[in-house]
Amino acid sequence: MYVTPGTDYDRDTRYITTRITADGRDGWPVAPGRYRLVVSRACPWASRAVIVRRLLGLEDALSMGVCGPTHDERSWTFDLDPGGVDPVLGIPRIRDAYLARDPEYPRGITVPAIVDVPSGMVVTNDYGQMTLDLETEWTALHRPGAPDLYPPALRDEIDEVDARVYRDVNNGVYRCGFAGTQQSYDRAYDRLFAGLDWLSERLTDRRYLVGETITEADVRLFTTLVRFDAVYHGHFRCNRSKFTEMPVLWAYARDLFQTPGFGDTVDFVHIKQHYYGVHRDINPSGVVPRGPLVGGWLTAHGREALGGRPFGDGTPPGPVRDDDRVATGHGADADDGPAA
Amino acid sequence: MYVTPGTDYDRDTRYITTRITADGRDGWPVAPGRYRLVVSRACPWASRAVIVRRLLGLEDALSMGVCGPTHDERSWTFDLDPGGVDPVLGIPRIRDAYLARDPEYPRGITVPAIVDVPSGMVVTNDYGQMTLDLETEWTALHRPGAPDLYPPALRDEIDEVDARVYRDVNNGVYRCGFAGTQQSYDRAYDRLFAGLDWLSERLTDRRYLVGETITEADVRLFTTLVRFDAVYHGHFRCNRSKFTEMPVLWAYARDLFQTPGFGDTVDFVHIKQHYYGVHRDINPSGVVPRGPLVGGWLTAHGREALGGRPFGDGTPPGPVRDDDRVATGHGADADDGPAA
Repeated sequence: MYVTPGTDYDRDTRYITTRITADGRDGWPVAPGRYRLVVSRACPWASRAVIVRRLLGLEDALSMGVCGPTHDERSWTFDLDPGGVDPVLGIPRIRDAYLARDPEYPRGITVPAIVDVPSGMVVTNDYGQMTLDLETEWTALHRPGAPDLYPPALRDEIDEVDARVYRDVNNGVYRCGFAGTQQSYDRAYDRLFAGLDWLSERLTDRRYLVGETITEADVRLFTTLVRFDAVYHGHFRCNRSKFTEMPVLWAYARDLFQTPGFGDTVDFVHIKQHYYGVHRDINPSGVVPRGPLVGGWLTAHGREALGGRPFGDGTPPGPVRDDDRVATGHGADADDGPAA
Repeated sequence: MYVTPGTDYDRDTRYITTRITADGRDGWPVAPGRYRLVVSRACPWASRAVIVRRLLGLEDALSMGVCGPTHDERSWTFDLDPGGVDPVLGIPRIRDAYLARDPEYPRGITVPAIVDVPSGMVVTNDYGQMTLDLETEWTALHRPGAPDLYPPALRDEIDEVDARVYRDVNNGVYRCGFAGTQQSYDRAYDRLFAGLDWLSERLTDRRYLVGETITEADVRLFTTLVRFDAVYHGHFRCNRSKFTEMPVLWAYARDLFQTPGFGDTVDFVHIKQHYYGVHRDINPSGVVPRGPLVGGWLTAHGREALGGRPFGDGTPPGPVRDDDRVATGHGADADDGPAA
């Protein structure tokens, strides 16, 4: 149940906040092969970690388990895997790893989660800190040429941008979708589109959100934008216009989508199956819309003209590993007819 | 309950089919001031009659009562009128006029309905025949210069176009929205967009659907198209693209919208309040989306270049009567921000 009639949507932001750090001060030191990142490609919060892992070349150091797009009331599940069991953790539900950490675990079973493989325990599901730690604590295991996604000189500005993007956009779409009153929805809608207008203005003459290169701020905004027309526009009623009708943001997001590490992690099929299939309180039939056509994501964006250096002094990631390939194809080449 | 899980949507098409004719053969002769057309501006089927009445200048001959956009399980109501009672019929609910006709009336309470004022009985709610009769049986009461919306020489072609438009588009959007299975939705979606593609092709080089002038066929298509992005795109999941992304149909519909008798009958506020507020089985919260922006309906369409004579040898209707003015404004000038 996501909608509580008569109330605003209120995200439960109590996470398991122990951290995996270089010095291991919480008892969980960075180590190659020790941990497993568990995600769903449907989930925007998890997708941040999927993108960052790939941009930084952490595939060998940090394996990844992918849950299916739908889940029951108790847990995301490994229904995509043979036998419905994660091949590394040997469990059918990520909930099992939460209960290994705390048999009375009282809060939401969420992705992304990083699991300590030897003990089978969730170490953290604090998605906000998670990508920052991958960027700053896991540096010894980054690939050669990995970009700096959280450069010290830009952290204040990134944090500031992220705070508004989180409030008005990342979480703002949920506040629209799960509003329990018209007034609550109206407030969230105003904030969301004011936030998107602010972002459009900011991105009119700069290629990326902060500085000259791709940073954590772009990753956090991208995972919401890429879902906008597929699910937020209709299902969450974020419909002042389609995202594709906001030219600056649409070009900005296409630029990222076409950058290695972004679009190649996106699975529009999983995204739609999740939102429309799971949120039965706002879509009782569970029918999944066929649209929108997504071929436009691959069209020219023209943002190179703004300059910028996507990976700074680093290099793009290589091809997607076979293991990490999006199962259904990302969908941008799966259109079944012309858009117009 | 509109959605029956596991089934296709099946419209109840059993109407009260007695007719009001020039010769009164069913007992209900055409007569000025005797009947009252009861509509809701939310309803596409009723809106056909609203448009035709105005195009033909029947305002003095056939008065009109307007129900509010929402209704309970039993009936549309006159909640917009002072005291919640229709000032001519003296009833709070159109259901009362159905029961006057048949105390055991077993079927849906629908608009449009034409009520015989002296007896208070519904004469007909057969919306398909209703507009044809206004066009061909009420001719003695038409205004000077009224267009011929159903010209004898074009009737076969109009009927043929209408049949496909009804099946795939007018009713097709409902088949998408109220599908009880994914398969049922998928079939309806394919038919709908195949139908819209066919219409786009047909309208590429002709200004109106049949012949050189506006006919009944255009009225029937318009009332679905004008609702498309406001309700069918999101609420009914008709989302291959927005209607505004289909350039031929979008220009065709803008052309009609800007023609006296079409846009001046449209109330986007009522449309959205109805669909989102009433269909709680597909929108349990009843929250009404704020979007989409509708200012685009007033932009240039360029269709004059295709020729055509909107009213043939007739003339456009005059200004909207004060009584018939859309209460909330049609909404196309009520945008609260830029579209992009």
